[in-house]
Amino acid sequence: MPENGWFLHQQLCDDSVAVGDLPLSRLLAMNDADFPWLVLVPRRAGVSEIIDLGPEQAMLMDEIALVCRALKDETQCDKLNVAAIGNIVPQLHIHVVARRKDDPLWPQPIWGAAARRPAAAVDLTRFVGSVRRRMAGSMAGTNP
Amino acid sequence: MPENGWFLHQQLCDDSVAVGDLPLSRLLAMNDADFPWLVLVPRRAGVSEIIDLGPEQAMLMDEIALVCRALKDETQCDKLNVAAIGNIVPQLHIHVVARRKDDPLWPQPIWGAAARRPAAAVDLTRFVGSVRRRMAGSMAGTNP
Repeated sequence: MPENGWFLHQQLCDDSVAVGDLPLSRLLAMNDADFPWLVLVPRRAGVSEIIDLGPEQAMLMDEIALVCRALKDETQCDKLNVAAIGNIVPQLHIHVVARRKDDPLWPQPIWGAAARRPAAAVDLTRFVGSVRRRMAGSMAGTNP
Repeated sequence: MPENGWFLHQQLCDDSVAVGDLPLSRLLAMNDADFPWLVLVPRRAGVSEIIDLGPEQAMLMDEIALVCRALKDETQCDKLNVAAIGNIVPQLHIHVVARRKDDPLWPQPIWGAAARRPAAAVDLTRFVGSVRRRMAGSMAGTNP
């Protein structure tokens, strides 16, 4: 549903499932078999850089921190990788990825690597459910 | 110089020159011929994730935004790429890279790509000088 003219970019929509809405951002889980991978998308139209958000940058950082904490607690990962790239999808979106020293690409970044493998539906559903439960106090709803 | 036990990681030191110190972070310019590339390193010992900063996360976001603005104004780039990865260098550091649609790696991310080409000294010096001038009002000193 549009929110002040905002709608989720089709590529992000195709590659993920919705976890829910934080005050500023929609939280997505990427459909990926190898990496626990969340994406925050601020629901603001026409925004492609963090600095385009103006004072709402502070809200974005709060939400990045919430997501980082939930993902670290959920996965007990060795490292979080956080990035706003957007060279292909111009709508501002922030990746938060849990990395392990024994994962298929460690220590390389996951962006720009070969094509992703989609997750088994049951695994993705379980992951989304777990993240929702961890973040329930921060989310307005699931807005799938 | 150590600051409450903090010192710059040797790899970051080897790969960059210091631009100056913001209230939280040391600002570095990577020695790279192909990309205008700045790195923020919070001067806090033992910190490897953004969430390790606690309430200082807000200061980090302010400094990321300052650096993004300066780099965009300086380069008139097409896109900023911002990332905290740290799979190889565990000390928390945030990359801010100016990307152009005609740069050598567009639209791929620069991290994980082939070895970097060092910049000509004159170019790096000019870039650092320009960034220092743009950020002079925010920096305590150059602390090389």
